[in-house]
Amino acid sequence: MFADTGLLSPGWARTGVDGLLDDRAWLRAMITTEVALARAQARLGVVPEAAAETIAAAADPDAFDWPGLVEGVHATGNPVVAFVSQLTAIVRAADTAAPATGPSAADHVHRGSTSQDVLDTATMLLCRDALRRLRTDLLATAAALAALAGRHRDTPMAGRTLTQHAVPITFGLKAAGWLAQVLDAVERVEAVLDGGLPVSLGGAAGTLAAYGEFADGDPLDLVEPFAAELGLAPQALPWHSARTPIADVASVLAFASGALGRLAADVAVLSRTEIGEVAEPAEPGRGASSAMPQKRNPVHATAILTAARQVPALVSVLHQCLVVEDERSAGGWHAEWQPLREALRLVLGAARNAAALTAGLRAFPDRMRENLALTGGAVVSERLGARLTPVLGKVETKRLLTEATAATSGRPDELPDWLHTRLAGAGPDLEALRALCDPRGYTGASGALVDRAVERWRAVGERG
Amino acid sequence: MFADTGLLSPGWARTGVDGLLDDRAWLRAMITTEVALARAQARLGVVPEAAAETIAAAADPDAFDWPGLVEGVHATGNPVVAFVSQLTAIVRAADTAAPATGPSAADHVHRGSTSQDVLDTATMLLCRDALRRLRTDLLATAAALAALAGRHRDTPMAGRTLTQHAVPITFGLKAAGWLAQVLDAVERVEAVLDGGLPVSLGGAAGTLAAYGEFADGDPLDLVEPFAAELGLAPQALPWHSARTPIADVASVLAFASGALGRLAADVAVLSRTEIGEVAEPAEPGRGASSAMPQKRNPVHATAILTAARQVPALVSVLHQCLVVEDERSAGGWHAEWQPLREALRLVLGAARNAAALTAGLRAFPDRMRENLALTGGAVVSERLGARLTPVLGKVETKRLLTEATAATSGRPDELPDWLHTRLAGAGPDLEALRALCDPRGYTGASGALVDRAVERWRAVGERG
Amino acid sequence: MFADTGLLSPGWARTGVDGLLDDRAWLRAMITTEVALARAQARLGVVPEAAAETIAAAADPDAFDWPGLVEGVHATGNPVVAFVSQLTAIVRAADTAAPATGPSAADHVHRGSTSQDVLDTATMLLCRDALRRLRTDLLATAAALAALAGRHRDTPMAGRTLTQHAVPITFGLKAAGWLAQVLDAVERVEAVLDGGLPVSLGGAAGTLAAYGEFADGDPLDLVEPFAAELGLAPQALPWHSARTPIADVASVLAFASGALGRLAADVAVLSRTEIGEVAEPAEPGRGASSAMPQKRNPVHATAILTAARQVPALVSVLHQCLVVEDERSAGGWHAEWQPLREALRLVLGAARNAAALTAGLRAFPDRMRENLALTGGAVVSERLGARLTPVLGKVETKRLLTEATAATSGRPDELPDWLHTRLAGAGPDLEALRALCDPRGYTGASGALVDRAVERWRAVGERG
Amino acid sequence: MFADTGLLSPGWARTGVDGLLDDRAWLRAMITTEVALARAQARLGVVPEAAAETIAAAADPDAFDWPGLVEGVHATGNPVVAFVSQLTAIVRAADTAAPATGPSAADHVHRGSTSQDVLDTATMLLCRDALRRLRTDLLATAAALAALAGRHRDTPMAGRTLTQHAVPITFGLKAAGWLAQVLDAVERVEAVLDGGLPVSLGGAAGTLAAYGEFADGDPLDLVEPFAAELGLAPQALPWHSARTPIADVASVLAFASGALGRLAADVAVLSRTEIGEVAEPAEPGRGASSAMPQKRNPVHATAILTAARQVPALVSVLHQCLVVEDERSAGGWHAEWQPLREALRLVLGAARNAAALTAGLRAFPDRMRENLALTGGAVVSERLGARLTPVLGKVETKRLLTEATAATSGRPDELPDWLHTRLAGAGPDLEALRALCDPRGYTGASGALVDRAVERWRAVGERG
Repeated sequence: MFADTGLLSPGWARTGVDGLLDDRAWLRAMITTEVALARAQARLGVVPEAAAETIAAAADPDAFDWPGLVEGVHATGNPVVAFVSQLTAIVRAADTAAPATGPSAADHVHRGSTSQDVLDTATMLLCRDALRRLRTDLLATAAALAALAGRHRDTPMAGRTLTQHAVPITFGLKAAGWLAQVLDAVERVEAVLDGGLPVSLGGAAGTLAAYGEFADGDPLDLVEPFAAELGLAPQALPWHSARTPIADVASVLAFASGALGRLAADVAVLSRTEIGEVAEPAEPGRGASSAMPQKRNPVHATAILTAARQVPALVSVLHQCLVVEDERSAGGWHAEWQPLREALRLVLGAARNAAALTAGLRAFPDRMRENLALTGGAVVSERLGARLTPVLGKVETKRLLTEATAATSGRPDELPDWLHTRLAGAGPDLEALRALCDPRGYTGASGALVDRAVERWRAVGERG
Repeated sequence: MFADTGLLSPGWARTGVDGLLDDRAWLRAMITTEVALARAQARLGVVPEAAAETIAAAADPDAFDWPGLVEGVHATGNPVVAFVSQLTAIVRAADTAAPATGPSAADHVHRGSTSQDVLDTATMLLCRDALRRLRTDLLATAAALAALAGRHRDTPMAGRTLTQHAVPITFGLKAAGWLAQVLDAVERVEAVLDGGLPVSLGGAAGTLAAYGEFADGDPLDLVEPFAAELGLAPQALPWHSARTPIADVASVLAFASGALGRLAADVAVLSRTEIGEVAEPAEPGRGASSAMPQKRNPVHATAILTAARQVPALVSVLHQCLVVEDERSAGGWHAEWQPLREALRLVLGAARNAAALTAGLRAFPDRMRENLALTGGAVVSERLGARLTPVLGKVETKRLLTEATAATSGRPDELPDWLHTRLAGAGPDLEALRALCDPRGYTGASGALVDRAVERWRAVGERG
Repeated sequence: MFADTGLLSPGWARTGVDGLLDDRAWLRAMITTEVALARAQARLGVVPEAAAETIAAAADPDAFDWPGLVEGVHATGNPVVAFVSQLTAIVRAADTAAPATGPSAADHVHRGSTSQDVLDTATMLLCRDALRRLRTDLLATAAALAALAGRHRDTPMAGRTLTQHAVPITFGLKAAGWLAQVLDAVERVEAVLDGGLPVSLGGAAGTLAAYGEFADGDPLDLVEPFAAELGLAPQALPWHSARTPIADVASVLAFASGALGRLAADVAVLSRTEIGEVAEPAEPGRGASSAMPQKRNPVHATAILTAARQVPALVSVLHQCLVVEDERSAGGWHAEWQPLREALRLVLGAARNAAALTAGLRAFPDRMRENLALTGGAVVSERLGARLTPVLGKVETKRLLTEATAATSGRPDELPDWLHTRLAGAGPDLEALRALCDPRGYTGASGALVDRAVERWRAVGERG
Repeated sequence: MFADTGLLSPGWARTGVDGLLDDRAWLRAMITTEVALARAQARLGVVPEAAAETIAAAADPDAFDWPGLVEGVHATGNPVVAFVSQLTAIVRAADTAAPATGPSAADHVHRGSTSQDVLDTATMLLCRDALRRLRTDLLATAAALAALAGRHRDTPMAGRTLTQHAVPITFGLKAAGWLAQVLDAVERVEAVLDGGLPVSLGGAAGTLAAYGEFADGDPLDLVEPFAAELGLAPQALPWHSARTPIADVASVLAFASGALGRLAADVAVLSRTEIGEVAEPAEPGRGASSAMPQKRNPVHATAILTAARQVPALVSVLHQCLVVEDERSAGGWHAEWQPLREALRLVLGAARNAAALTAGLRAFPDRMRENLALTGGAVVSERLGARLTPVLGKVETKRLLTEATAATSGRPDELPDWLHTRLAGAGPDLEALRALCDPRGYTGASGALVDRAVERWRAVGERG
């Protein structure tokens, strides 16, 4: 009953993120957090070892009354109050070692703690797992792009600016550009993971006072063992109102979403019926249209673009939620949860879609060549300009090329001859003009840039 | 399995919107749409009456294979392709009148239609129902605020600007200000409902060609009966890429969210321990803190503020999705669904919370009076300035009042005497000075403005 | 020194909005507001007629010390405090009728008023003028689109969904779709203008108390004459913290931005070198590239798209600023000014660009026809499906058409024959098949929808 | 004529950012870029040394025709085309060494380059300078906060959650929390600066082909000397459509804005008339109200909050602009400029305001103590709960404390005695109860956390 199914979310439906980040995943992470707290307190002697293990053994997600949990969200503003209350009852019921009316492991549940410690820590656990998966899918995407860039290192195609053919590039360079930005995303994800997502341990108002009250020791001693239990980083200071960890995750999600969205935007353009330079992998059933059997929609790109349209706004909510008042905000904290969850889902879904898209992306060099010929020599007019300017001066060169482009429009092959005639011996000879007019000879540093991007990918890949 | 439970959404958890707007609600609305299409086509003779009724009878939400629906979202980018395919199979299986291999009611499912027609129409059905509920809860909130404003029409309190006491107002005026803006929201919701949320009927690319192909008549004839079946408005033109209806709903949600958020922001301020001029209704279990029994958190206000932090960003996605290309966008259409759903949920949740909050809001005139006295006569210095300027001139008046405020700080009662001494007979006499220094006498048009707001509420209420 | 020049704003540079909405325009509007206040108070006898006219005569924008005004923004958080102080001094200096030390017209400047009354009213004046200009440019755009739609009512072109050819439409229908949404924008602009942008008159905390203090009458009597002086609507209640008028303007700007952005997105797609179905007007110097003389960039569309990418986010700030606390917010009010100004500029710039773009948009029916032929008969496969399904059943029809599309790919002319052979006498005869395969015969209700949109435009045009 | 004055921007008016980031600053940076390009090309022998120096000498910002520049923005969509054209003319006019009709230094202006290379590089120069200033002001803020935290390490005050008193903290801990997050911001700014903001060098479509055309060498050789001339980092790949550097700056601005906004939100709350625990520095003229001489508005906090409300939305535009198509986007690139500029201005203004605010922030320990007493012992009920639970059990403890809080409400001094009576010998003795009820004894790890934050600040400070 508590799955988020994705019916309205083509950005992440069936990419495996539903089970990873649905309501039940949060419940599991809250349980993990409470168990780690009890065990860390047991290490310090604050809670009996046996009580901690009784809590661990009893804390079964299926034992919770879900409507009661959600009712608690409404009544108290967060899911933890009802969760702790139910967990306590579950432990008490399971604590067969406890006397009927005496102390029980249940009395050690959530000791000294506060709702925000539990929810923030649980959220960090889920963010860590999500970012790890994101990194994996970004690396898979990068590997596919590196292969693509290498394969098409020298395949000429039209470079386009403001929707118009500009000068030639290679398809390898385009893929290398996508690759470089996906690697940028990998590095930013790694920076957050390496920096360490922290546990949250502040108690009611960030002083950890109640932890200390139960411990009769320095409450800060609890931070390290708690973090160790969870494999999270220790916190420097409590961060109930200092939402740096959330903001860091948010920024990296915005970036990854954009890097993948740009790739998808290019694929959508290049897949257009009239352009046809690439096509998404043809998988049976994918991209089908019920009424138009001929259609093959770029469904992966669509899914990624859908995500890319939503994530920046969701991230802006998270950035806005940095501005909170007091030791715990009335609304600011609470407004983070759903946008963070949805942004994670969308970006993870986009990365999974990108991995599939790039793994099977089909490129059509013939169409690239045909398209490149569409404007005739115009696509190399920049080069001609560079060569003729020393001969004719800037102004006359520009005038001549404008005329040449118009005169040979639709018949690009005639451009060298036309120029040769008009230049009347000035400037390059006919053979040189023919070479200058060949787009394949004017791809600049494309090849070297591809090599550079692929090399960087190898270095990242070797790193792990 | 397909409920959205609200565990991470205190903004709408348990406010009744889960069932109204969850994935299953969309399924139901898609079924309603297909049934209406078949019946409308039956009215025109395009589909046999019996087939339409067979479809209507067979279309049971529980008959659908949910994982298959979600798999379809992934494979085709929208939930309709798999839905239609399953619906067709369900109808075929149920069509006991059909010969084993011959024509069946199933062949008339989704006739001439396209995914977007079904999903857009289903979405309009849900928006209409949601906006009607929103209107009801806004009116309930308005009624409570009208009563509150009337009751405290003349209860003086400190007017605050930039967090500082400025001049006196009445609590009635504050409530009237909330009321006026809630009525603004009611009017904007009504404008959208009255304008008529339209059906969507365009076919594959907005020409309705396939509807006509099956009808052998003017395909536009289908619009009216289809709209009539659903109680929606006819469309003027197909709106697959002209997202006016979505934008209209979006704008009204942003407004309602803000109007309620402002009320909640004020309640949060006035509930502060140090201010204590209002308190949320004390309901058992609500606003409780697990560790601090004394606490009574403003949970309704928190829920509303949580929503108010998210809705503008969600609406910005919807506004951004006005910018779509082609007859159907790759990603732009798809990016609307979840933000629209979530914005609806958050605003409906906020309105329900606001109705509860205002119905039971407790006001404490004594605390208002005490707080008003905090700055002594400073809160009336504007008035004193107006009265003394004709006597002393602008500059000297300002100087004197600054001195007076400092001199009697903490002893406001002494202000009239202090002034009387210093004025040495110039200006108002001591009695007049005492009257001028009484904040209760300086609430301007507060009462009249309250009357005006309450009168407007009555007019709206009478309207329906 | 105080112009906003637009160097970084191709969305509005040189569209005439700089002078309309720059800092100096706000100064002028603040002056107009203060003069209207004095004259309205003069009507009520609160201020001497002569004083009001002295203020009106003295209030010269050039008389202000600009650095002092800006310093005041820094020191007090708004531009009005320093403005009033300078205005007072300017009036005093100009008031030659005043005795050296006695009362002066200067003493009647800003009487009973507050910063927010002046700035909010000035902003409404500018919004009104801006929305009127926006309406004019939207109507010009609509007129051009109506002509375009009429001219190309029956010009067939490919309908595209998810970047792929779907079924045929007409270019007239596409233009009609743009037109309809531009008319939607006109109506929404008119609704805000007709609803009446209100003056702001609340005094220090929304009670109008100080206005009454000076008037010794009902302070609400001031609202009507003040509004009449300015040609704005009277307010219902003071709206210092009830930002309905700003939100209404914001929502309409978001909508207009999106409606124009969609048009521009389509123009950008259709202008692509490979598609070439439309081109922006060729104006000398526009769309030029320094290095590539052949290029003709869609500069108007680019300018509009630039605006469309920014406006929803700016509007989200304005919607967020509905949530303000107290009688005047610490930051919420102030955060509106620049986003509102920039959103106005961008949308007005977009409308001016759209008027120019549509006035000269060139359409190329030949290219439309060529592109339509690209997929062969595939673009009519939906129609063939509708016709063959009754003969072959749904499944077999789909199979046959998929095969047919593949078999005749690149040779669309062969499709009817291929089908005829395979159908072996079942279904339509060869001539009928040829007719069914002609995209020009499958544009559905395109023509009727064009007529409907043009008719609506006429009705709007006649209205004003 | 081309200053942005800040009249509507209290967030940055008169904080020195106008000159740093106005239109003229962009002109200067574009000049610097062109000069560096010529010099780098001179190093490689592509351009004569003398020509490079002639360009450098001639390129005077005052020599440009501003209206012509802005007209160029309108005509071509970016400011560079007209800028290069004017620069060329200026150099030609100044090139006294050149023959009247022969080659001139002007012919070497912008050689092989493209608009985006110039504007992107100029933007990086300005971002670098802006981030350096931001770092300085953040460090100044941190220093003030470190002093404040140290001074009030043990000053007790109420910890507040959801607007209600929760448990005691110290004011030092609150300041330490602000400090820690400002240091987080410093580190994130430094990471971007240390990572190196790159030059942009791609030529027309990212291949650097034209640079090579003029150089007859490897065009990539140009990157290092160009970067060295400017003190920027070399690029890895051209980034015309890979907007990582912009996104990195954007994310750090969102974070810094939030970190400062949170500080300001707390200051605004604590400055409230009823709370009065802190006050902004009293500077003559600042925070003044024209009509209410007693008012002292928290103007710095207001300015910072104003910025914090706008920056996340502006950053969302920049994140959205990661999604661009082709080798240069039609609109996506252009939409970055103004939001980036405004976000920089707002954050730099906020940091300058924060430095001033924190340098002079006044704290009032007496008011903190008085407020702490407002709820009586309730603020320590968590502690009492921890101590009494082992004695009475969880349920009975909660019941007793709820009763105690109600019974002694308003007379906190009586709480220990009340409890002592009711406990009737069970639990702590009277003296122990008195100690437990003293909020000063229940500040947990506050002091240690302050020390930790101050220590971190020292480490950062020593680093540079």
